[in-house]
Amino acid sequence: MRFTSETSSDGVREQLFLLDDIPGVLWTPEGAAGTRPLILMGHGGGQHKKTTGIQALGHRFAAECDFAVVAVDVPGHGDRPRHEEYNRIAMENQARVEAGEELAPLIAGFQALVARQTVPEWRAVLDAVQALEHVGTGPVGYWGVSLGCGLGVPFVAAEPRIRAAVLGLGGALASAEEAARITIPVEFLVQWDDERVPRSASLALFDAFASAEKTLHANPGRHGELPAFELDSALRFFARHLP
Amino acid sequence: MRFTSETSSDGVREQLFLLDDIPGVLWTPEGAAGTRPLILMGHGGGQHKKTTGIQALGHRFAAECDFAVVAVDVPGHGDRPRHEEYNRIAMENQARVEAGEELAPLIAGFQALVARQTVPEWRAVLDAVQALEHVGTGPVGYWGVSLGCGLGVPFVAAEPRIRAAVLGLGGALASAEEAARITIPVEFLVQWDDERVPRSASLALFDAFASAEKTLHANPGRHGELPAFELDSALRFFARHLP
Repeated sequence: MRFTSETSSDGVREQLFLLDDIPGVLWTPEGAAGTRPLILMGHGGGQHKKTTGIQALGHRFAAECDFAVVAVDVPGHGDRPRHEEYNRIAMENQARVEAGEELAPLIAGFQALVARQTVPEWRAVLDAVQALEHVGTGPVGYWGVSLGCGLGVPFVAAEPRIRAAVLGLGGALASAEEAARITIPVEFLVQWDDERVPRSASLALFDAFASAEKTLHANPGRHGELPAFELDSALRFFARHLP
Repeated sequence: MRFTSETSSDGVREQLFLLDDIPGVLWTPEGAAGTRPLILMGHGGGQHKKTTGIQALGHRFAAECDFAVVAVDVPGHGDRPRHEEYNRIAMENQARVEAGEELAPLIAGFQALVARQTVPEWRAVLDAVQALEHVGTGPVGYWGVSLGCGLGVPFVAAEPRIRAAVLGLGGALASAEEAARITIPVEFLVQWDDERVPRSASLALFDAFASAEKTLHANPGRHGELPAFELDSALRFFARHLP
């Protein structure tokens, strides 16, 4: 793990790093020392580790909850090179949608493929970040919607360090089996008028989680229109579950 | 409006009253003077104005949010006399369920009937309580689940003083038309394994609200198993919407 830059703003320290060839960002409260809860955030499709929504919420986790927060670029996103195979599949899928195929199953299949790479990558990120003195091996949460949910469900199912997760804007098509292995508290976000994820697929994914405590929050609006109060809710959710 | 008793505990003043023949309870912060937000709470079937859940949450609205809170007995409940017609219908419905009829439509029809009485009663309660110096004509919220939702939807639709509502554990069968006239912010609670309200009817009622801001919170469990964190959420919801 190699740190490549460090800045501070509004009480939050931002460290960019490379772990092997994976570019990442770590946010911690300025002056943080010792073990604290850690949130791993998964960004959406076409976004990157420092995309506006991730950066804004990551800062809030650090500033308001005293958490550490880490995000890395998904393959083919942000500072990572084009991924020829994923790119080819994405273009084929685009053509299939234009030819009349349903979008949701194609997205689901694609995310399941990428997850085979990101699950081990993200576990390595947790190993590396938890070895830092100002992060340590405290409880870990996962936050990710849309692509961050499609990749997050297999990750959360595979990774016992994750103790609570906010997921959403995703459906059950590819990940119901993994979801059924998830037993930690989950807050699950649904956009009621999501043009990308059929409502029934969202509800089916919520259904599939084996968690005793799972809570579904549905709000009107399209895929990209998550209301701001759901970010406040995510902060409270993690503050409650990552003591 | 005639006050019949007054006590105080944990910083909350409790006044029992009769408005005509309607028994009610008013909770206000101890020492309250001047106008403040008011919550009208509707209790569940077989419950009453001071049933444990209503009393506990009403106290919290007063103690933690500095609100006034009023609840009255629904006809045939609490300190009100048996209501012969409602009683007869309830017994007929019981017999019809035992004979194999579906429960939900019978509940819905019954609640619509009772609402024809409670809507004007509750409007009179608002009039009377808002005339008190320590309540005044501030913004008003409504909280009610189960029977409190079945009676609450027609009430909220009819009463322009209500500015935000927490509703839930109810379905669309009888009240979709009234729901479509509701445009205020709504937080809507669904129990995912509700044995009394079919999930599809719950989702249909959420769908029916015309509110630009409406948020559905669904949690695993049966009709009576609303998780405690949803009460915290209701407090924050009203604190946000009743300034």
